[in-house]
Amino acid sequence: MENNAGNVLRIGIVGYGNLGRGVELSIRQNPDMELVAIFTRRDPSLLNIGPKAVSISKIEEYKGKIDVMILCGGSATDLPEQVLQISKMFNTVDSFDTHAKIPEYFENVDKVAKSSNTLSLISTGWDPGLFSIARLLGQSILPQGEEYTFWGKGLSQGHSDAIRRVAGVKNGVQYTIPLDSALERVRAGENPQLTTAEKHQRVCYVVANEGASVEEIETTIKTMPHYFDQYETTVHFISEEELKANHSTMPHGGTVFRTGTTGTDTKQRIEFSLALEDNPEFTSSVLVAYARAVAKMAANGQTGACTVFDIPLGCLSPKSAAELRRTLL
Amino acid sequence: MENNAGNVLRIGIVGYGNLGRGVELSIRQNPDMELVAIFTRRDPSLLNIGPKAVSISKIEEYKGKIDVMILCGGSATDLPEQVLQISKMFNTVDSFDTHAKIPEYFENVDKVAKSSNTLSLISTGWDPGLFSIARLLGQSILPQGEEYTFWGKGLSQGHSDAIRRVAGVKNGVQYTIPLDSALERVRAGENPQLTTAEKHQRVCYVVANEGASVEEIETTIKTMPHYFDQYETTVHFISEEELKANHSTMPHGGTVFRTGTTGTDTKQRIEFSLALEDNPEFTSSVLVAYARAVAKMAANGQTGACTVFDIPLGCLSPKSAAELRRTLL
Repeated sequence: MENNAGNVLRIGIVGYGNLGRGVELSIRQNPDMELVAIFTRRDPSLLNIGPKAVSISKIEEYKGKIDVMILCGGSATDLPEQVLQISKMFNTVDSFDTHAKIPEYFENVDKVAKSSNTLSLISTGWDPGLFSIARLLGQSILPQGEEYTFWGKGLSQGHSDAIRRVAGVKNGVQYTIPLDSALERVRAGENPQLTTAEKHQRVCYVVANEGASVEEIETTIKTMPHYFDQYETTVHFISEEELKANHSTMPHGGTVFRTGTTGTDTKQRIEFSLALEDNPEFTSSVLVAYARAVAKMAANGQTGACTVFDIPLGCLSPKSAAELRRTLL
Repeated sequence: MENNAGNVLRIGIVGYGNLGRGVELSIRQNPDMELVAIFTRRDPSLLNIGPKAVSISKIEEYKGKIDVMILCGGSATDLPEQVLQISKMFNTVDSFDTHAKIPEYFENVDKVAKSSNTLSLISTGWDPGLFSIARLLGQSILPQGEEYTFWGKGLSQGHSDAIRRVAGVKNGVQYTIPLDSALERVRAGENPQLTTAEKHQRVCYVVANEGASVEEIETTIKTMPHYFDQYETTVHFISEEELKANHSTMPHGGTVFRTGTTGTDTKQRIEFSLALEDNPEFTSSVLVAYARAVAKMAANGQTGACTVFDIPLGCLSPKSAAELRRTLL
């Protein structure tokens, strides 16, 4: 396939939800990139972004005009279907995050991309993605040790949905928050065994319907199996106005720890944290940086599927290898 | 050159100071590796480690018997000389950390290694090394942002030496400690402009000679140009026994921050921290993990000089690519 090495990197976006919009914004921060088109299953005029909105039925016409296609659909149904079609024609980057299905997804994409001479990076973002890198570094450098992942403070979409299904609930959000006591034990090098419930608390902000029993709602939430029953859970009742004013953003983040020993019980700790005001915008920025890497590696003839573990990190940067050595080592 | 892919990785160590001893200990934690020999300029019997201690004059005899040589000499004089000799015969890993001279060092090593069909990874460890990776990720993912490196809490060899040269000082150590107030401003997303002196305090533990004026010593230290005069400096006078009991280890660490914005002023933060009870032992563990990567890449035919920016991170792990995808993504 054609490539465009040395010139401006031509990017396409497939799907225009939170992630697609984030990619659009991120490209504007990277002067070495240009957004060519945003492909949508909807009527392109509904996107209200002008001529760059294109029906996905016309994607084949862009073959050779786009260096990397960033797939911004959902992992449940969009990506497994779209990636196999699109990687026949384009290099791709995606954020497929159904952990259990990654091996199968990789194999499927690898076959198509190899036979099509394209390169597809799967499952990047922050988890999977940057957190996977942090785990790999930790395990490789401190083979004798424990690994911990804490999520939050973050808005959990799944738990917010669960709250909103409770009878009497008009609206609501749920934040997953690491327990300070657990963080402290890990930082102190105690190497504790901790379940997910022992590492996190769940804090809910709920708008109740008029006349609904807040006691009943609170009990239903706190005893909900799997979602809340094993966790330290707090429920705050607030007004719809308050919810809109204070709880309409999508913060997230977390910390990956590796605590290990070297020599004769010398304690060493590696810690990687993210504090994100907007989860989809950050994930998009990761996808965009990795799109640059995919373009460089594809220009060098690499094909098939790959993951963040296969990417030399220098490829993420617009700087040359010599400039990286001079300024960043 | 011969390689040994798939079998146990055969490692050699050059130099047996703190770093060399750390590498020896780290290899014991990695069942896929075997220590073949430790090369020394001293009389090998003085190392008291048995037949694995070998005079560096015999290093050529080990050609083909060692997959990667880990160079554990100092950056000032040992490494620039040794690496050019040893990379003629072996793949190497080193921790060359004279930042200003890295480009020249790279070019020199690259020439020798390319013409000798060997692979040499230069300047790894934690800074340069893991901190370089953190900076690269931060800049590439959040191109609009600020970068901060805080060092410590850590024992500074250079500053401890400076204290010990002060008249009236019998012994002493210096710790570099990040200022909490500066850390808080960075974490709050203020994007402050901070000099090194505004980010760190210096805490000294000093043993005075009998009869020496502690006031004079304290003043001399606190007003020492470059080393202390611009810093918030504290001097504690303690006994030799106390120094031995409480200040004979080599802790270090630090934090690299990238604070940036995406979209319309959305704040995002990436933070990478190390808390190390023993600096050389940790650096050694990094060198050993990167030795594995060098062996894998050399087995694939790569030659010349490279840095941490050129290494696909999966190469650091003893696990296969499929296992990494299944367990770590």
